[in-house]
Amino acid sequence: MSESKSTNIVWHQGTVERPQREILNRHRGFTIWFTGLSGSGKSTVSVALEERLHGMGCRTYRLDGDNVRSGLNRDLAFSPEDRIENIRRIGEVAKLFRDAGVINLTAFISPYRRDREMARALSSDNDFVEVYVDAPLDVCEQRDPKGLYKRARAGSIPNFTGISAPYEPPEEAEIHIRTGESSVDECVEQIVAYLLANDYIESGLVETAGDG
Amino acid sequence: MSESKSTNIVWHQGTVERPQREILNRHRGFTIWFTGLSGSGKSTVSVALEERLHGMGCRTYRLDGDNVRSGLNRDLAFSPEDRIENIRRIGEVAKLFRDAGVINLTAFISPYRRDREMARALSSDNDFVEVYVDAPLDVCEQRDPKGLYKRARAGSIPNFTGISAPYEPPEEAEIHIRTGESSVDECVEQIVAYLLANDYIESGLVETAGDG
Repeated sequence: MSESKSTNIVWHQGTVERPQREILNRHRGFTIWFTGLSGSGKSTVSVALEERLHGMGCRTYRLDGDNVRSGLNRDLAFSPEDRIENIRRIGEVAKLFRDAGVINLTAFISPYRRDREMARALSSDNDFVEVYVDAPLDVCEQRDPKGLYKRARAGSIPNFTGISAPYEPPEEAEIHIRTGESSVDECVEQIVAYLLANDYIESGLVETAGDG
Repeated sequence: MSESKSTNIVWHQGTVERPQREILNRHRGFTIWFTGLSGSGKSTVSVALEERLHGMGCRTYRLDGDNVRSGLNRDLAFSPEDRIENIRRIGEVAKLFRDAGVINLTAFISPYRRDREMARALSSDNDFVEVYVDAPLDVCEQRDPKGLYKRARAGSIPNFTGISAPYEPPEEAEIHIRTGESSVDECVEQIVAYLLANDYIESGLVETAGDG
């Protein structure tokens, strides 16, 4: 999979490319890649962060199990090779959204460093922000919003991350949030502060965008 | 592939969904699906149309062989089953872009009615606009911008649409353009007129969007 099987391709340079789309949006396209255990708070924080960014006038989109697993990746199950392909496709779609000038938030366990690095390798400098959503396993298991840990402990879900399959925490994530200690709002503000401080977004956007 | 293999999925309703994104963009998310022979003008017209829509302040993105075949679908070749999977994934990605509130333009030969209907079936009423890019085979073959017809005639490209594989023209495309008779600008205006007349876009958008 390191080389394209597709041939007969000639590049067609369009007039509207990423820079033009980003100028219209008044912000760059980039990816905020959440990673963490099931129940760590990836979905909750990404939903709240999208609401915050949208309120600032940013063009946003959230990729998560709901819209990806039921559509693009519906042919994939949870075998090791299907999990890799799952993350590979998500990384490629995230790249398309960056190219579209959209701030895209991905919320997947993405337990393996190698797979996350594969997704990052598709990005340019500084348009991939990894967020480690850190919560102790026992906290995640107590939350168990989908009842998955219970089923995994009962043996009815094989290869469940944290129980019967490993989770490899990021070693150099751009942002590290601790949902067992901080509220959702605090986590969102921590991420927004990082994005502002590193010029991913501007605080003044909200005044000019989205108003008639 | 008619049913999802993915299980353990619980819907997480976010605060920012398609309607909120469309309000911010001041237009709906929809797909303009170009279909036609190689050399019929799909890429050329889609590039010119995107420029026109972008100039009106619309959020746009173009999916074509360049960015899809070299990325998301790089694991696919040109066998019959890979061609189906190619179009399936493009249809699913187009759906994600609609959900993001983005006007997405797809430029693929997509020769089979069944495959195009598969992509359309993922859409809601009126958010899938099929454009039949119609040019006679001999005109396409004379243009041959990528030298593919020459290679196909020489037998070095198997299953080449129009030469050694069928093209099934749309029977009920929303828009039918004839690039052998009309200029690129005329084709673009024909499409824009349709989009305006059917309330996909508004002519007043350009005055308010994208200005500082």
